[in-house]
Amino acid sequence: MVGILRDYTPTSYPRGRKIMDLSPDWVVGFTDGEGRFFVGINPDPKTATGYQVLPEFTIVQHKRDIQVLYALKRFFRCGVVRPDNEGRYAYRVRNLKGLRQVCDFFLHHPLKTKKRIDFLRFHRVITMMERGDHLRLEGLFEIVQIAMKMNTQERPQLKQVALEISNRLRVG
Amino acid sequence: MVGILRDYTPTSYPRGRKIMDLSPDWVVGFTDGEGRFFVGINPDPKTATGYQVLPEFTIVQHKRDIQVLYALKRFFRCGVVRPDNEGRYAYRVRNLKGLRQVCDFFLHHPLKTKKRIDFLRFHRVITMMERGDHLRLEGLFEIVQIAMKMNTQERPQLKQVALEISNRLRVG
Repeated sequence: MVGILRDYTPTSYPRGRKIMDLSPDWVVGFTDGEGRFFVGINPDPKTATGYQVLPEFTIVQHKRDIQVLYALKRFFRCGVVRPDNEGRYAYRVRNLKGLRQVCDFFLHHPLKTKKRIDFLRFHRVITMMERGDHLRLEGLFEIVQIAMKMNTQERPQLKQVALEISNRLRVG
Repeated sequence: MVGILRDYTPTSYPRGRKIMDLSPDWVVGFTDGEGRFFVGINPDPKTATGYQVLPEFTIVQHKRDIQVLYALKRFFRCGVVRPDNEGRYAYRVRNLKGLRQVCDFFLHHPLKTKKRIDFLRFHRVITMMERGDHLRLEGLFEIVQIAMKMNTQERPQLKQVALEISNRLRVG
């Protein structure tokens, strides 16, 4: 009754292939399952608009799978692996240059779930930010509208931001 | 400010490739994220041991991604797509022949997360069931031991089953 789990080591897998070599299709499938494209809008008195736009691509895993997160970091050649909540870790890309690389990858290797729609909205925001649109009130308003349509959870706070910017646009 | 999401249709993706043609690596990546290998042990007075062993491979998605579930069914050439809880749908394989196909696939295309360990335990159970080991008390006891080590959630009920079988083995 003991030792029933013999021969269960990764060495019993096909040789000549490192377990953490990620292929593009695997990355697409894993992102379809676990990836998150998110556009945060935070108040920031230091900016001309009064808001900071914070887009991020994130994959969160239990600590036991931290190696997969580091493999993703190697794959995309950008981003960081950091502790997240409750013994979980996150692979996260926040800077525009890295997010452009991530976007270019998913433009050429399309997601298969409806997360694809979120990604395309995300990509629209990244493209606008590359042009500096987020630094002007009109562009920021458009980005907030896009962000409100993304992800499944409601974000009532964004509605307030949109209303506030909309009022300023009307006055100005 | 309206119509900002133009050009967001899948037709803007690389041509000559159907969006729901799944590649082996995509299936591995998606399963690493969303797949579940589970061995249920249910009381069943009709069997010699008093228990039925119910292994299953499952992938659950929101209804909006039901197409992905049907694509998985086509990919594995087995299983069913059925409603699950809370507006979600499940792709599920329960019969031994189908589970053998699923196991053979993941033996040749290894998972990259620690779910791999669950899969290898699951495969051990499937192999035992193919030999009919689950129909005898000793084999059933071994399967319960394996099932207790699988998945992250505690299954206190299985401990009771193991204790009960262990007592019968000692008496018999």
